[in-house]
Amino acid sequence: MADTEGLLPSELIGRKRDGHELSEAQLRALIEGMLSGEVSEAQVAALLMAGVIKGFSVAEAKALTAILWESGETLDLSSLNGPTIDKHSTGGVGDGTTLLVAPLVAAAGGQMVKLSGRGLGHTGGTLDKLEAIPGFDVSLEPEQMLEIAEHVGCVVAAQTDRLVPADRTLYALRDLTGTVESTALIASSVMSKKLAAGASTIVLDVKAGDGAFMPDARQAEQLAELCVEIAQDAGRRCAALVTDMEQPLGRRIGNATEVAEAISLLSGSPRGRLAEVALELATLALSEARPRSGRRDAADDVRDDLVTRWERGEALERLEQMIATQGGDAEVCDDPSSILPSAPVQREVVATAGGTVSAMPARRIGEIVARLGAGRARKGDDIDPAVGVDLDVEVGDEIEAGQRLALVHARSAEDAQRAVQGLKSTIALGEATDRHPIHTRVLRG
Amino acid sequence: MADTEGLLPSELIGRKRDGHELSEAQLRALIEGMLSGEVSEAQVAALLMAGVIKGFSVAEAKALTAILWESGETLDLSSLNGPTIDKHSTGGVGDGTTLLVAPLVAAAGGQMVKLSGRGLGHTGGTLDKLEAIPGFDVSLEPEQMLEIAEHVGCVVAAQTDRLVPADRTLYALRDLTGTVESTALIASSVMSKKLAAGASTIVLDVKAGDGAFMPDARQAEQLAELCVEIAQDAGRRCAALVTDMEQPLGRRIGNATEVAEAISLLSGSPRGRLAEVALELATLALSEARPRSGRRDAADDVRDDLVTRWERGEALERLEQMIATQGGDAEVCDDPSSILPSAPVQREVVATAGGTVSAMPARRIGEIVARLGAGRARKGDDIDPAVGVDLDVEVGDEIEAGQRLALVHARSAEDAQRAVQGLKSTIALGEATDRHPIHTRVLRG
Repeated sequence: MADTEGLLPSELIGRKRDGHELSEAQLRALIEGMLSGEVSEAQVAALLMAGVIKGFSVAEAKALTAILWESGETLDLSSLNGPTIDKHSTGGVGDGTTLLVAPLVAAAGGQMVKLSGRGLGHTGGTLDKLEAIPGFDVSLEPEQMLEIAEHVGCVVAAQTDRLVPADRTLYALRDLTGTVESTALIASSVMSKKLAAGASTIVLDVKAGDGAFMPDARQAEQLAELCVEIAQDAGRRCAALVTDMEQPLGRRIGNATEVAEAISLLSGSPRGRLAEVALELATLALSEARPRSGRRDAADDVRDDLVTRWERGEALERLEQMIATQGGDAEVCDDPSSILPSAPVQREVVATAGGTVSAMPARRIGEIVARLGAGRARKGDDIDPAVGVDLDVEVGDEIEAGQRLALVHARSAEDAQRAVQGLKSTIALGEATDRHPIHTRVLRG
Repeated sequence: MADTEGLLPSELIGRKRDGHELSEAQLRALIEGMLSGEVSEAQVAALLMAGVIKGFSVAEAKALTAILWESGETLDLSSLNGPTIDKHSTGGVGDGTTLLVAPLVAAAGGQMVKLSGRGLGHTGGTLDKLEAIPGFDVSLEPEQMLEIAEHVGCVVAAQTDRLVPADRTLYALRDLTGTVESTALIASSVMSKKLAAGASTIVLDVKAGDGAFMPDARQAEQLAELCVEIAQDAGRRCAALVTDMEQPLGRRIGNATEVAEAISLLSGSPRGRLAEVALELATLALSEARPRSGRRDAADDVRDDLVTRWERGEALERLEQMIATQGGDAEVCDDPSSILPSAPVQREVVATAGGTVSAMPARRIGEIVARLGAGRARKGDDIDPAVGVDLDVEVGDEIEAGQRLALVHARSAEDAQRAVQGLKSTIALGEATDRHPIHTRVLRG
C-alpha cells in the first residue's frame, strides 16, 4: 500500500468525512488498495460518499485522475506526425459530433485516434452509430489504430479493457452507491481516459441542459474548467466548449439515421446546430494544437479553412476512407439509404395546431428513441441500428397545423404509434421563446 | 426486499446523500438487503457515510433500532416477577459499575439479566473482569440466565451471536468505513441490544470526557436523550445518567483488581466516585421501575433503602450468590487476594514533587493498563486478569513529594517500569482545579 503517513484506511476515510484534503499517496492507498483487495469496496464507497458531500479539491481531482490513468495500458501516439487530437463529449441526444469532427480534423492535417463508448439510457454512443454501417469494425488493436490514423488521419475504435481498468471498477461502484454526482469524480473519470489515450491536444464538449448528464449550466462550466486544469497539469493542450443539450443537438436521433445525417451534412455546407458545434470543436482543437499569437485571429483562420475543406468534400472523403479502412461499406457515403439498415415501419408526427415550438426536451426524446430499440436500459443490451426519429423542427420554429414535426422509424406499428404519441406530448408549443445559444462558453488553456 | 416506493438502492442512498429522511421500509430494504446479500456492503457504507455527515433523524434512529433489534432472537423475561432492570454503560476506564449495580438491584428486589461485552482498546469489559474469578462462567443459555435471575436476582452473561446479529455486522462495517461517529447509529446499536435483552426498565450510563467513546459532554447528552426516546417509543421505562470519564471512575484499573475493588466497596459503605455512580444508577433504575408520585422523594427513599442494604452487606451477599451460581469461587468475597490471580511484579509510582493533582487522563491511563496486558488491541486477543494499576489519588487531591500515587501490577519488571514511567508523565500536577462533577445530568422518561 502507498504511504499513508501511518493512517489506517478507516482513519483516511474519517479525514475526508471531516472535510480534510487527502494526499495523492493517501488516495492511492485506498483506490489501489481496493484494486489489489487490501481495501474493501465498502471503504472506498464511504470515501466517495464523503467526497461527494464534502467535496474533493482540485489537487485531489488531479491525484484521482493520475491514479486511474496509471492503472492500465496507455496509447503511445508519438509515432504520428501530429498534431494528435482527441475529443470527448459528456454525452447527449442526437450528438453525432464525432462523425463530423474526426474527418474534419483529419482533412485539416490533424490525427485523431478516438476511443469511443456505447450508448446508455437516453444517450447515444458513437460505436453504436458506426456499427450501423455494414461491416464496420470497432475492435482494433493499438497498432491498427496508429496505422489508420497515420494513413487516413482519423480512426474510431472501442476502448479496450486494458485502458484505465480502475475507472471501470470505480464507476461501477459509484453507479451502485449514489456517488456519481461529483464534479471531481466525473472529471477524473473523463480525463484519465483522455490522458491514457495519448493525444497531445484534447477538446471537450461539456453538455448542459435537460438531456445532459449535468443539466445545470454552472456545474457544467465547473466540470469543464476542472477538466481543462487537469489536462494542462498533465502537460496536454486542452480546451472545452459548454454546449446546449436542452433539445437534441442534431435533427436525427438513432444509429443509422445519425450516420445518414453526418454524411448528408458533410456532402453540403455546414448548417444547423450539430454542424456548428462540430465546426467549433474542430476549430478549437486545431487552434489549440497549433497555437499562434493572436489566438482569435488564428481561430478565425482555422475555421475558415475548415469550412472550405468541408465544402470541398475533403471531410466526407476522410470519413469514406476511414469507413473503408475499418471494414465498413464505404458506398454508404454515396448512397446512405441503400446501404444503411432501414426500419419496416415509418410514421409521421403531424402538428394538430400551429404556434411556436417552445420546448423539445432532449432527455424525453432520447428515452422515446431508446424505447424504439435504439438504446439500452442496461449495458450489454442489444440495440436495433435501424430505428430512430428524424425531427423536422427545433425550438423557436414557427409551425402550422398539419405540418410534419417528425418521422418515426420503428420495428412495428405498435412501437411507432407509441413513439408518435410520446413525441406529440413532448414537443411543446407555446409563446415564442428564447433559443438557447448553441454554446455558452469556451474555456481555453 | 421491503417496499422502497419503487426506488433502487442507489436512489435511496442518493436521497440520504441529499439530506432527505428515509422511511423505515426504505432503511429496512438497505440493511436487511445487505444481510440477505441483495444489497452490497459498499451500498450500506455509502448510506452510513451520507447519514453520518447529513444526520439521521430521530425517526430514522428508531427505525434503525427496530431493524437491528428484530434481526435475531430476543430474551423473554416475562416469567420473572420483576421489575426487570437492565443497565448499559458506553464504556470507560475503571468502570466497574455493573459489579455493584447488579447485586444492589437484586438486593432491593429487582431482577437484572445483564448481557455484557469484553474490553477493547483502552476500555475494560465486565466479562473480562468476572472471568478473573476462577471458575466463573459467562456462557449461559437463556434458560440458565432466567433461572439465576429468579433465584439470585442478578446474572451477568455474554451476549450470544443470536442476539441482534445485524448490529455486529453493521458495527464491523462502520468500524472499517469511518462511520462510527454518529449519535443515531450509536444509539440504535446500543438500544437494539437493550431492547432485545428484554428488561422493562433500562438505565443508561453515558460517559463524557477524555476516556469516553464520546468525549464531548453535549454530544453525550444528545446520545442519552436519543436513547431514552428510543426506549420509550418501544414501550420501556428508561432513564440515563451522563457521567464523568475525564479521569478513571474507580480507583483500580484491570480485571482482578476491579473485582477486588467492588468486593471491598460492597463490604463497607458506599464511598468514592465509583460507588456514587453505581448508587445513582441503581436508584434511577428502581425509581423508574416503580414510579410513584413525587418522583424525587421516591428516588430519595430508594437511595436510602439501597444504602441501608449496601451497609448491611445484602448486595455483597447477592454478588457472592451470583458468583457461586455461575461456577465461580465465591470464597473471593471473603478473601479476594487469596482467590484472585496476582501479578508477579509490583511497582510503586511515587510523587517526585508536591502539589495538586490537576489531571489523570482516563484514556492514557486505560492505554497504559491495556499495554500491561489487561486489555486488547484487537477483538479476540488474550488478556491477563492479574495485571493492572491501583490509583491512590484522584483529581483535586493535594499530594506531597514521596507520596505513593499508584501501584502497578505487572508481568515483568520491564512492563512495570514502562507503566510507572507512563503514569508519572500522565498524572499531572498543577494549579488547584475544579473537580468535574461525577454526573452532570439525569434524563428521566
